[in-house]
Amino acid sequence: MVLLSGGLDSATCLAVARAEGFEVNALTIQYGQRHVREVEAANRVVEHLGAVRHEIHRLDPRIFRGSALTDAIPVPRGRDPGSMTGGVPVTYVPARNTVFLSLALAWAETLGCGDIFIGVNAVDYSGYPDCRPAFIEAFTAMANLATRAAVEGRLAVNIHTPLLEMTKGDIIRKGISLGVDYGLTWSCYDPASGGTPCGECDSCILRARGFRDAGLEDPLGRKSCKG
Amino acid sequence: MVLLSGGLDSATCLAVARAEGFEVNALTIQYGQRHVREVEAANRVVEHLGAVRHEIHRLDPRIFRGSALTDAIPVPRGRDPGSMTGGVPVTYVPARNTVFLSLALAWAETLGCGDIFIGVNAVDYSGYPDCRPAFIEAFTAMANLATRAAVEGRLAVNIHTPLLEMTKGDIIRKGISLGVDYGLTWSCYDPASGGTPCGECDSCILRARGFRDAGLEDPLGRKSCKG
Repeated sequence: MVLLSGGLDSATCLAVARAEGFEVNALTIQYGQRHVREVEAANRVVEHLGAVRHEIHRLDPRIFRGSALTDAIPVPRGRDPGSMTGGVPVTYVPARNTVFLSLALAWAETLGCGDIFIGVNAVDYSGYPDCRPAFIEAFTAMANLATRAAVEGRLAVNIHTPLLEMTKGDIIRKGISLGVDYGLTWSCYDPASGGTPCGECDSCILRARGFRDAGLEDPLGRKSCKG
Repeated sequence: MVLLSGGLDSATCLAVARAEGFEVNALTIQYGQRHVREVEAANRVVEHLGAVRHEIHRLDPRIFRGSALTDAIPVPRGRDPGSMTGGVPVTYVPARNTVFLSLALAWAETLGCGDIFIGVNAVDYSGYPDCRPAFIEAFTAMANLATRAAVEGRLAVNIHTPLLEMTKGDIIRKGISLGVDYGLTWSCYDPASGGTPCGECDSCILRARGFRDAGLEDPLGRKSCKG
């Protein structure tokens, strides 16, 4: 089971799962994100990298509120996402990874699958608490007490986070080595960015730094390379 | 925040939260349960007991599959739900309480609320793993690493399970003492039961035993008192 947003990290995560020999069930959640363009990217990534199944599940958009990714709150521009000054930014979505992993856990148990991949990263990231190793460990402990399959000893839950400790440059190099076409992915948070990434939100800046560190050109174009 | 299905336990849980002085935000999840009648009951319970807010959120019905509560699988009849023979029954819904608590956690953080009530019970129940104390403890630990509000030390997450160690009879007595009208609730799992509970599913049998133990008549009528 791979949680696939359609961004750079989750596309790489899917490629890693495939390279490790897993048959992939991909789950994309449409939760009212204003940058809904990433859902179209998820479809392209699955077409490109392959999956046994891909489902896009809609979540009631009222679940996630109070974030610049879901509400009419401006997406911050020109920040230094690595600096962590000002704490967790307004693009934080309340309990998003908890909800996503829970939804993945439910479908995974039905499919008889105990391996869940999520492309969280705690190096080049915006400081979201639910991207950190301690959160992933606690979720894993909880999940192994939650499902019938785990409690009956038939299927342990294992949350795979292959990108957790990698830099964005390493992630991109890894993905390129596995044949990922990053031109199909979408990272920009700005709902008004049209077909071209804004180049100024946290996500664009982190992506641009990653491509620069990897010594590569972003196939999405130079506008995303300002950061 | 109170997770309210519309059944006997969650209605009692709401009454306990109110009695403890909480302003209640009630969350009902419509997840494709075949006994959707419980959602109508949730509306009646809120009207009766009161809440600051009540929202009914629809979940993609594909999330929960493989259960007699969501798929065309017969609901078992005439079992002894307390005996635990045969393990967790087919009415188990994969990872349901994990998903429900996660959705409550997300909305709660937005509202600035750290207290989440869930009417789980590990005495007169069907053996579902996600109703047990160890699961609730693990979820709490995870939640306190998941949200910005918890990690920044502004709002600890506290999962309240006032019914966890009570018998069904005790739950009913408690609810009656708090003025709960159980005639408004709905417990029956059978989607074909019409306006009258089937009296033979686990949920009806546990309910009937509870009323008998409490020495009370179920206002939903004697058909639910067979067990």
